Order: sequence, then structure tokens, then C-alpha cells
Amino acid sequence: MKYVRFRDPAGATRRGTLEGGQVHFANESYDLADEEIDVLPPCEPSKIVCIGRNYADHAAEMDNDVPDRPLLFLKPPNTLASHGDTITAPAGKDRIDYEAELGVVIGEQCRHVPEAKAMDVVEGFTCVNDVSNRDDQRQEQNWIRGKAFDGAAPIGPVLATPEEVPADATVESRVNGETKQQGSRSQLIFSIPELIAEITTYLTLEPGDVIATGTPEGVGPLEDGDEVEIEVEGVGTLSHSVRIP
Amino acid sequence: MKYVRFRDPAGATRRGTLEGGQVHFANESYDLADEEIDVLPPCEPSKIVCIGRNYADHAAEMDNDVPDRPLLFLKPPNTLASHGDTITAPAGKDRIDYEAELGVVIGEQCRHVPEAKAMDVVEGFTCVNDVSNRDDQRQEQNWIRGKAFDGAAPIGPVLATPEEVPADATVESRVNGETKQQGSRSQLIFSIPELIAEITTYLTLEPGDVIATGTPEGVGPLEDGDEVEIEVEGVGTLSHSVRIP
Repeated sequence: MKYVRFRDPAGATRRGTLEGGQVHFANESYDLADEEIDVLPPCEPSKIVCIGRNYADHAAEMDNDVPDRPLLFLKPPNTLASHGDTITAPAGKDRIDYEAELGVVIGEQCRHVPEAKAMDVVEGFTCVNDVSNRDDQRQEQNWIRGKAFDGAAPIGPVLATPEEVPADATVESRVNGETKQQGSRSQLIFSIPELIAEITTYLTLEPGDVIATGTPEGVGPLEDGDEVEIEVEGVGTLSHSVRIP
Repeated sequence: MKYVRFRDPAGATRRGTLEGGQVHFANESYDLADEEIDVLPPCEPSKIVCIGRNYADHAAEMDNDVPDRPLLFLKPPNTLASHGDTITAPAGKDRIDYEAELGVVIGEQCRHVPEAKAMDVVEGFTCVNDVSNRDDQRQEQNWIRGKAFDGAAPIGPVLATPEEVPADATVESRVNGETKQQGSRSQLIFSIPELIAEITTYLTLEPGDVIATGTPEGVGPLEDGDEVEIEVEGVGTLSHSVRIP
């Protein structure tokens, strides 16, 4: 099953099912590509827990070692942006990067989840762009200016339940139509159950919280006006544009 | 004015005024020290933005330089704990520290707030304990296991409006009645207006969001069963106990 959250023409927030490009709720159907509905993030996370260096080839391109346990960081709710939005990067920075990621949407409040039960707390998967301000990220102990600025987490538009997404689903980014990254869920250094077990050793996850599972090789800079697409096989494609002041 | 959020005996969430140790709401009054009301965090932050090394003497005791701009990190909502709670630290750690802090509660949604207008977005002040798991903090790039675990942000019980809190208000911690830290708001390296201006250059703050302004010299380890008090002059005293498994 695939779901899309949206505001309908009357302004009500709804979660419809997606079939053949049509979003269905009650007796109404809307074309996802049409502008008669405002697409919203697929969930309302209290936090996005992000994973750094979770693909060996990306760790290498950043001149980093592969970590011996997941490298965690946070994006708070102010970072959320939706499919179709234009995000505005912090002003005066030299390098704002895209990072395509598979997002895991949590379905229930949970802590101390063992790996063997971790998929029970997963509602589904979505697309995330972990937009990164490298100027500040390089200088900061904690990546707040670097990763937690407004608009740093475009997400959605689809939440796909787990059976829709193959174990080797491709995770891809395109900028102005050109493919920049192409990885696979099967390349994750720390698997989704390992991530859930590690995070919930310390933090309670809430329904709608998201784990952004890390980005494959091929990150690079965005220019003002670029159109970004993040595609996860079995989920769909997140599109947004970027303003770099 | 001083406010306390609580659940009344019927289970309803209320915000009452505090006078002479009594919390007033509608026609009812409750003794704050009494157990007939459950005290709640004074606000519902979507994020707590914390400041590292914002007192020169604390930076020195941690063998750190004073930063040239505010060192920022985040505590998400899972970290919240209330006055009177017993928090449970992550298991198997050698050093869990208290850190007394003055918390700034934001009153309105805001971004790009100039220093001269920063106090206009402040609803008031509260007490925060920035509980820290040093074992992991020392090893992490981003302080998630170290600072964002469940219960890592005891807060409250009072929200005091700005005129209640002197410019040189003391910020103090006590453990089992013994004073451990005693600093002053006047010692902050980056003032509250400077912090609000810097944070909102990057992040939108929401009503109820909190800025934890950093801790003075004297941090130290907690033992299982310790009783912690964080007192901010003009605000009040936050008390909680600690379980260290």
C-alpha cells in the first residue's frame, strides 16, 4: 500500500491511498501531479534521526572511515519540506549538497526494540533529501547550522508499506534530470533493524518519527534554481527545487 | 508572573499561576509541593536548542577553548522530564553528569530575529538540567547518545516571565543538598539576544521551544539515587532524582 498526506481543496488534512498516480480519499480522487492538492510530508515526525556514513563508498568519498557503530545526528521538525516545495538554503554559503536517502517511518511508540522485532515498529518507507550546508558542517561539533536549518529535510511524497520496497531497492538522486547518486538498500553498512535497535537503546521513537538511513556515493553541490529528484525503488519520487541566496 | 503546567486531579492539562507556593487555576488552588497534581514540563518544545561552552570557567574545566560563535546542539522531545520525576540514565555508563542551565522559553514562531528585538520573542525563563552521558559524548561527532537520551532534559517546574529574573540571576545546582555549581546569567559568553539572533539565522523557533543557555563551572558525576536540584534565581527550583542502571 502507498499513502500520500495532503491538504484537500477545502483545506482539510487527509491521508489518501495512491494508485496509478491518483490519490484516493473517501469518494474523491486527485491526480498527484495536479496542483489541486497541497502535498504534505507523509508523516509528522517529532524528530528525524539521521545516519552518517552508512554506505562504504560515501564514507570513502568524504575521506572518512566506516564507523564501528552508527553515526547519529538529528533533524528537528523545522527542517521538514514537502514534495513540490522550493527550499531556501542559508544565505552566503559556498556549498549546499543533496544527499538521497531511504527514510524509515516509525509506526508505534517504542524503546529497547531488539533487532529481531524491529520491522514490527516500521510503518513504511519514504524518500528523504538530507540537504547539507558543508561550510558549517565542516566547522561544527554538532551539525546544526550544517544539517538542521529550515528546509533541510524534503521528504515524501509517498509512504510505502514495507512489502512494496525490495531488499535491494535503489536509492537515487537526480539534479535537473541528471543522475547523481545510485545506491542500493542492500549496501547499508548498518541494516534497518540494527539502526532501530541501536537508536532505541537510547531514545524513544514516536509514531511518525523518521530514520534517514544514510546516503550513497555521489553527493555534490546544488546551484540556485536546481530541480532535485530523490527516487527510492518501490516508493516513488520526491521532487523539489532549491533557492540558494 | 510565574506559571506551572500540570495535570489536575481530573486528568486535565492546565497552566496555573504560581503565588506563595500555590498553583491557581480557575477557582482551584493546589500546593506545588503536594502530590495531588502531576507537574508537567512548563512548555511543549518541538526542540530544545542547547548551547555548549557558554561560560568561560566551564569551557576551561572541560579543557576546551571558548568558541568564537555559539556551539549548538539539540535535545529532541523524548528528552523531556518533569519536576519530581526519576530519570533513568542509559545502562552501563561510567559517568552521567548534571549541568544546571537557565532555559529560555520562546513565545512565538520566529526566524531572522535581530538582537535588538530578541527579547520580544521570549515568553520567559525556566530551569533545565542538561544531563550528559560523558562516555558516549566523548566518542560522538554529534551528541545523540551523549545528550539526547530519554530523560536527558529535566525542565521546569516554573516558567517565569522576563521581569521576574534579574540580569545577574544565579544558576545553581545541588546534589543531595550540596551546592555543586553556582554561576550567573551575567557570565554568559553569548547573551540571550545573541543566541536567539544566531539560532534563528538558520532555524525557525516555535512557541514552547527552549534554548538551554549553557552551564557554569562545577559539573560532575551523579550516582544512582542522587537527588538533583537546579535553581535559577527569580524562577524557582527544579528537583528530580536519578536512577543509574
